[in-house]
Amino acid sequence: MDQIFSNKILHLLNNLNKVTIKDALQRGCKSFYVENKMIGLIRPDFWEHLKNYTDVLEFVEVNASGHTSTLLKPGVHLSSSFKTHQERTIAIHGMLENLRQKNIILPLRGWRNENYSVSQKFTDEPLLEIERSACGLFGTIQYGVHVNGFVKSPNGEIKIWLGKRSKTKQTFPSMYDNLCAGGLTARLGILECVKKECKEEASISDELLEDLTFVGTLSYFYEDERGLFPECQFVYDLELPGDFTPVNADGEVAEFLLVSLEELKDLLVGGNFKPNCAAICLEFLIRHGYLNPDSDPNVSYYIEQLHSPLQTYYDGR
Amino acid sequence: MDQIFSNKILHLLNNLNKVTIKDALQRGCKSFYVENKMIGLIRPDFWEHLKNYTDVLEFVEVNASGHTSTLLKPGVHLSSSFKTHQERTIAIHGMLENLRQKNIILPLRGWRNENYSVSQKFTDEPLLEIERSACGLFGTIQYGVHVNGFVKSPNGEIKIWLGKRSKTKQTFPSMYDNLCAGGLTARLGILECVKKECKEEASISDELLEDLTFVGTLSYFYEDERGLFPECQFVYDLELPGDFTPVNADGEVAEFLLVSLEELKDLLVGGNFKPNCAAICLEFLIRHGYLNPDSDPNVSYYIEQLHSPLQTYYDGR
Repeated sequence: MDQIFSNKILHLLNNLNKVTIKDALQRGCKSFYVENKMIGLIRPDFWEHLKNYTDVLEFVEVNASGHTSTLLKPGVHLSSSFKTHQERTIAIHGMLENLRQKNIILPLRGWRNENYSVSQKFTDEPLLEIERSACGLFGTIQYGVHVNGFVKSPNGEIKIWLGKRSKTKQTFPSMYDNLCAGGLTARLGILECVKKECKEEASISDELLEDLTFVGTLSYFYEDERGLFPECQFVYDLELPGDFTPVNADGEVAEFLLVSLEELKDLLVGGNFKPNCAAICLEFLIRHGYLNPDSDPNVSYYIEQLHSPLQTYYDGR
Repeated sequence: MDQIFSNKILHLLNNLNKVTIKDALQRGCKSFYVENKMIGLIRPDFWEHLKNYTDVLEFVEVNASGHTSTLLKPGVHLSSSFKTHQERTIAIHGMLENLRQKNIILPLRGWRNENYSVSQKFTDEPLLEIERSACGLFGTIQYGVHVNGFVKSPNGEIKIWLGKRSKTKQTFPSMYDNLCAGGLTARLGILECVKKECKEEASISDELLEDLTFVGTLSYFYEDERGLFPECQFVYDLELPGDFTPVNADGEVAEFLLVSLEELKDLLVGGNFKPNCAAICLEFLIRHGYLNPDSDPNVSYYIEQLHSPLQTYYDGR
């Protein structure tokens, strides 16, 4: 067992999975509800800015007997005066535009003009849409797609393509990334989204995309200065021919590198990998038998940490 | 989306994952500690039989102020007079042998003369060993191995081997099972264990076993009349040649069947599949791209349910 590698991976995954709902509530985060369904968590620092919008948000307190005075659960509720998907989306959007003009909330400086769908479970009918850069303010579950692009030599040896992020990217500039990845914009199919990213970020042809294979989801719950990030990533493997070289088309990637799995292992713990992309690559190493529980007994714990049951947590279990 | 299939899978996974620690404690289950580390849960019905063994187990209560009178956490503790792995193993074993002679506890009738290692995290040094048939009494995490044996035709179509359990098996007689599977006996390596099962249950040669690939772990927490079962399975894929036919060598399998993934889908929800083995096959269907989130939006929820973070739960997070 490579103890140094193992300890660094545990550190990476603990950081990626630092938030638990229990801890968050204990330090003053507020559950966020739409239609009395918990769909997020709001940090105290953001709540200070949001609490004045009493026409949009309603705060339900616990009384002396430990209950609320209505059927509403304790926490922040989107006002029940907004009844439809469209009304709710417009209400939150208006509040965010107002806050953005005041220029007091950091994450809103990264405004994307792109909406994410919000629901408690992925399969539920979306309750509303929220601007992507604001989702961390509300701690809603964000979905995305990631692609492990790899090449298999005739003797079975696997090499994997990594992107190095452009140094002008808003987040994690110059760090290692997967071949392509992106957030799931509202109303976009998952396969549609992943194919779009493959074309934009790596110029992969329709023909090569036929081999794109969904292999699972990874989920984790991290936090940074931009807010709370419960994230679920739809992961795809794409075996590429040896003579293919990805070409970035949207300026988001500085360069692509093809590395052996041994080199990947070193890069994962080298401190220059976007943490959630490192997690995606770690799971690739496990799933392809390169890391196994006999050589590294922490593998079963890594896998737990890569599958935080976010939808179950928000469902109150 | 196949709504009937999807609903039946949700039902299967909800049953397989019915236990949460929160619910268990609320209905009177007691946390079980060794060295003040939570490693299990004891149901009230079993506690009635165990509580008289005050030389082995110590019950720590919460006082009026909500705390315990010692540094020990509230719940059942293995007496601190047993300080080593061996002393603890012997102490529990003696108590269980005594209970077994009284013939009052159902699961002990399935005594296996086989020990499981017990720790909070898989990677921790084991604290003790407990007879396999008694692990459900203490709700300790049980580990096992499962093999998806499959055949790939030249056009890429996958068929999977299933076992049908012998009608004389103690548990789940005559139900569909994976190609081979087994519990992880104390002090056995995982690969060693899975190879042993492959030989005993399906007569797979050493040569074919070279292709055995670890692909991940699945974990879930179920309950039945035999007790509480937080289980973590080490899953292996094994691609087999088209001309290979498994032959059972230990009498545990009545017959083997090679089925298409479409047939597998029907069998999974047909009510005659050992539930945890159905979960293993479900994950195989997902990981090989046969079930995907565009065709079945519940896939991301299935994956959550297949990865209950048991070690994290017992760690108190």
